[in-house]
Amino acid sequence: MTTIPEFFIRRFKELAVDEGFGIVGDYALKLFAQLHHCGFPILVTTDEQGAAFAAEAYARIRGFGVCAVTYSVGGFKVVNATAGAWAENVPLLVLSGAPGLSERQGDPLLHHKVKNFDTQLEVFKDITIAQAVLTNPLTVTAEIDRVLGAMIANQRPGYIEIPRDMVDVPVLDCLEDLSIELPKVHPQRLELAVAETLQLLEGAGDAVAIAGLMAVRRGLGKELLAFMENFEVPMATTSVSKGVVPETHPLALGVYMGAVSAPAIVQQVENAKPLIMFGVLYADLIMGAFTDHLDRGQVIECTDYQVSIGFRTYQDVPLWAFLPALIKAASARGYKEYGHVTHKTMTFIPIAGQGLVVERIMECVSIFLDNKMRLIVEPGDCLFGSIELPAQSLMLASAYYATMGYAVPAALGAARADATRRPLVLVGDGAFLMTGLEVLSSVFHGVNPLVIVVDNQGYGTQRPMMDGPFNDIASLRSEELPTVLGTGKGFLCKTEDELFSALTKATALDELCIIRACVPLGKYSPGLLRLTSALKKRV
Amino acid sequence: MTTIPEFFIRRFKELAVDEGFGIVGDYALKLFAQLHHCGFPILVTTDEQGAAFAAEAYARIRGFGVCAVTYSVGGFKVVNATAGAWAENVPLLVLSGAPGLSERQGDPLLHHKVKNFDTQLEVFKDITIAQAVLTNPLTVTAEIDRVLGAMIANQRPGYIEIPRDMVDVPVLDCLEDLSIELPKVHPQRLELAVAETLQLLEGAGDAVAIAGLMAVRRGLGKELLAFMENFEVPMATTSVSKGVVPETHPLALGVYMGAVSAPAIVQQVENAKPLIMFGVLYADLIMGAFTDHLDRGQVIECTDYQVSIGFRTYQDVPLWAFLPALIKAASARGYKEYGHVTHKTMTFIPIAGQGLVVERIMECVSIFLDNKMRLIVEPGDCLFGSIELPAQSLMLASAYYATMGYAVPAALGAARADATRRPLVLVGDGAFLMTGLEVLSSVFHGVNPLVIVVDNQGYGTQRPMMDGPFNDIASLRSEELPTVLGTGKGFLCKTEDELFSALTKATALDELCIIRACVPLGKYSPGLLRLTSALKKRV
Repeated sequence: MTTIPEFFIRRFKELAVDEGFGIVGDYALKLFAQLHHCGFPILVTTDEQGAAFAAEAYARIRGFGVCAVTYSVGGFKVVNATAGAWAENVPLLVLSGAPGLSERQGDPLLHHKVKNFDTQLEVFKDITIAQAVLTNPLTVTAEIDRVLGAMIANQRPGYIEIPRDMVDVPVLDCLEDLSIELPKVHPQRLELAVAETLQLLEGAGDAVAIAGLMAVRRGLGKELLAFMENFEVPMATTSVSKGVVPETHPLALGVYMGAVSAPAIVQQVENAKPLIMFGVLYADLIMGAFTDHLDRGQVIECTDYQVSIGFRTYQDVPLWAFLPALIKAASARGYKEYGHVTHKTMTFIPIAGQGLVVERIMECVSIFLDNKMRLIVEPGDCLFGSIELPAQSLMLASAYYATMGYAVPAALGAARADATRRPLVLVGDGAFLMTGLEVLSSVFHGVNPLVIVVDNQGYGTQRPMMDGPFNDIASLRSEELPTVLGTGKGFLCKTEDELFSALTKATALDELCIIRACVPLGKYSPGLLRLTSALKKRV
Repeated sequence: MTTIPEFFIRRFKELAVDEGFGIVGDYALKLFAQLHHCGFPILVTTDEQGAAFAAEAYARIRGFGVCAVTYSVGGFKVVNATAGAWAENVPLLVLSGAPGLSERQGDPLLHHKVKNFDTQLEVFKDITIAQAVLTNPLTVTAEIDRVLGAMIANQRPGYIEIPRDMVDVPVLDCLEDLSIELPKVHPQRLELAVAETLQLLEGAGDAVAIAGLMAVRRGLGKELLAFMENFEVPMATTSVSKGVVPETHPLALGVYMGAVSAPAIVQQVENAKPLIMFGVLYADLIMGAFTDHLDRGQVIECTDYQVSIGFRTYQDVPLWAFLPALIKAASARGYKEYGHVTHKTMTFIPIAGQGLVVERIMECVSIFLDNKMRLIVEPGDCLFGSIELPAQSLMLASAYYATMGYAVPAALGAARADATRRPLVLVGDGAFLMTGLEVLSSVFHGVNPLVIVVDNQGYGTQRPMMDGPFNDIASLRSEELPTVLGTGKGFLCKTEDELFSALTKATALDELCIIRACVPLGKYSPGLLRLTSALKKRV
């Protein structure tokens, strides 16, 4: 026998998850207390939304994340983050407290109840891959394993609800490790797909690879690097996989995003023969509002389930099996190890007194970015502006689902998942108003992000599409926030030399730093201008 | 012919709704622009959560509220507020932008999409009374009327989604006013119910009334006052209807909340003969965790649909028809008008150097509370502490659903709905971290709330039930926030004289005021202690 919290923690340890994020409530008190007691703390944030974004970021790095909440008033606050986890294939587990089974007798109006006791479950059915309400001691562990297994197999969020009177009930244990079924492999098709791909790649002087979302989710970072180096194939990424290979590498091309990308990258990717795509999410924002021109007849497309070469498909040849097999076959044929790599370096010379624009902010940031930093960016001009920053580790962004308010709380989750990298957050003034106060949660849990608030006075991404008073927002002196928090340093920057000086100081400080970089109304990154011009036609 | 935005605005004007609250996004740009253009502004907040709470508060005062959002990343952020509107019978309309119908062809992965294009609709089906996606120009106005009608008839939230390419399509107009079907009336049963009630009330020296939630929702404030005065029956309220009759009135008893209320009120209510309940929501928190002792055999219970006298029920005798009929019958019998009323006054003498406790904070606040102020309180010790404050207008609180983060954004909506009353917000430090930044939205829209942050260093309401590190939160110097906002005044108070002085200044100032009132860890209002002791048995 075991208890639900004990069993959860055993599974979480197997999945290399050391802690969760969330906010308590009376229906979740016993659950939180037992999890803490057994060595699995739930880190508090300012709002549940922040907890879910933090847990989701943790999951992007560790492969699994846990957000714990109370019933309804907690759970319903994390619907948006969970929906985002669905859209961007993140195994985020929402653990919710709930009224005890014995309390529900007679169907009373208990606080937090909505239509009925299953309302929260019904909502989460629409946005998660698997759900369970733990009511039967004999099946509890099997139910948990069913949800966790489906989440990992499909890389989607899941939902588990625990009535509070079930928390310390002894339940039937399961002694085996969690069994995870990855997408299945057809051995002969795999062999053929590898052979055909090798043939196409051999001697192809203008091959290009794109490392996409599912390659990241299946933990294939090392294999992508090995592929790029062994085959000497230049590799682009997408905005949801940026940094999975270090972008200072001479073979790294940076982010391909259709017409949003620099013309040189667009040319090289769209003229590649062959173009090999590893787990790319073919979605509008990823593809620059579908401004890509990829010739499907020339593409080798590897997904989570199959490999298509031109118009022919090898079913049941999933990426997780295909990429390692490809590298193995290549090295068997004698592909050399790639030698010493001279990484690209960046330069930026600030012009004293010169007002800031996003393009130059990014150039300035690029010289401070190193392998000890994790780039986390907000959708909008920060994302579009950042695509050419030389990320040396996986960048985090809600780059397809594109929810605002993600970046600041994600910094907490990212740094807890990987303490070796300090979060460098790029966030607009609009998004910073939404969740910027979560910097306080970071500091509370020992994380000291460097946050650059790119202040363009409102919802700048919308203005080129259609402007009006709905794009104007209240102004916040974010550089003064450390006074209210009682911790950290703030910097107000209007010119290039001020930004350069602030970044010099902030990167040397081991505490929360908030840099407010003011850019003029109506000035955008070149990438955003290209994108919004494409989007404008469809508003 | 008309357009969707034009038709919405016609209906909103009929419903006395002048503006909405929300945050734009590209799928909602055209909708927002057209609404603004036609004279229906959508007021921006810092986060969609705040917009929904503001709109919900507006609806509590005006009878209807509008929250406008973009698809998924906006809509999913307001699920919690919408669920709360369901639980507390608030007609909150969620208006969502959506991808254009023409864009959906071929089922592409468009940004913000989750499982499919109906995911958001599916979620809102679980938490609203009626839904519509406006796709057919011939039925659009009928669909809008169906949703609005159901919302008002049932006093529940609704959901309408507008694909962006439908915004300026000419649609078939409807020339009549919105027809609203209130719960139906059976005339003879109404007559009998009134007669029997009159008989029971006549000469009953120990009758008591409770004015509940549905009496407020049906706009019966004046009728409640007339009932109380004409029959000279003392009237209690509940935490979701507090202030619907002015609590300084000599016949007003204050809030009845089971064992949470002062013993004198409990005695009077529970020993009343008869007790007449007007639209009371019989729910755990409303009834002090069901610590009420109401003898159902002695009660006249009037709901939105029927009147029960003891164990016999008059079906189809709804509150909206019953209460006016009762007053009319009474005055026909010659009940006198109630004469001049001497309202109760409060006293408080601060003790210099005396540390603050919640009980004394409330006593101090009570002498500053007048008819030009609207009390808005957060669940937790602010709510329990506030039950004996003499509210002179409807207090707002998420008092049954009990979501945290409601009060500060509700202040914006409340003051926009009724500009004659300045919001006086009582909020804990935990809830203030969640949505406290929405004070900035208030100022942006010309509202200057007086916010008292009762800082008890964490989730104080939970501690008496079960304490642990999950109840500890980061500390915010909320009194310094005006520096970051660039507007308003802040006050830090640790003693009674400091609080008295701060309230004296803040009530005289016509700008945002934030008073941080620090109370020691482990000190609670008497009401909370009584409640948590009752709840503790069930954690």
